[in-house]
Amino acid sequence: MSIKIRLTQGPLPPLTPSISTPGSGAWIAFDGIVRPTEDGEDINGLYYEAYRPMAEQQLESIGKELLEKHALISMDIEHSVGLVPIYACSFRLIIESAHRKEGLAAMDGFIDRLKQDVPIWKSAK
Amino acid sequence: MSIKIRLTQGPLPPLTPSISTPGSGAWIAFDGIVRPTEDGEDINGLYYEAYRPMAEQQLESIGKELLEKHALISMDIEHSVGLVPIYACSFRLIIESAHRKEGLAAMDGFIDRLKQDVPIWKSAK
Repeated sequence: MSIKIRLTQGPLPPLTPSISTPGSGAWIAFDGIVRPTEDGEDINGLYYEAYRPMAEQQLESIGKELLEKHALISMDIEHSVGLVPIYACSFRLIIESAHRKEGLAAMDGFIDRLKQDVPIWKSAK
Repeated sequence: MSIKIRLTQGPLPPLTPSISTPGSGAWIAFDGIVRPTEDGEDINGLYYEAYRPMAEQQLESIGKELLEKHALISMDIEHSVGLVPIYACSFRLIIESAHRKEGLAAMDGFIDRLKQDVPIWKSAK
């Protein structure tokens, strides 16, 4: 079981293919992309502000909880801070698990918790 | 809405990052990886046999159904035929959707249907 967490300035770089951990049956990657409208208004981007120490701590604690709950193999979490233009990636989650169901459930669960419990706020620019 | 389907000889090549379609809020990739054991026995790989015309037709029909049901933006489906060694990728599904929930639901739904309704059989080697 491994977990990696990063808060990165600006948009996330394109996904680099990684070798899967031996024993993984499912490798799942999620990229959250900034859409060109927010609450029905055209925007240029989103600006993310994080309360860093607590955000990192919360990301790790939620990650660890889901890693154990779903017996995952690994979780790699990256979130932007600062300005992310439309069409760019502001959040990436990569999960490896033995089987598909656990990985997909953990992905859905993680993103719910991210929105609820992690002190990262966005504003339209 | 777009859909792409391929049956590919041997293991699938590493994922190449693609530019997301403008308007996508979620880009989700799933790689199914051959695990080193099957029914508790060590294996060298899995051999996939497909009844090609019907397999392609079924993949497309299930894909289109889910594309519409979940109002997805795109779906890209690739499955191996022939021998895939352990630790290599034998199935890849990439989904783009406006929002996360639809994309994850479609991914789960597609893989269920793949296993039930598509004439691709695997045997341990």
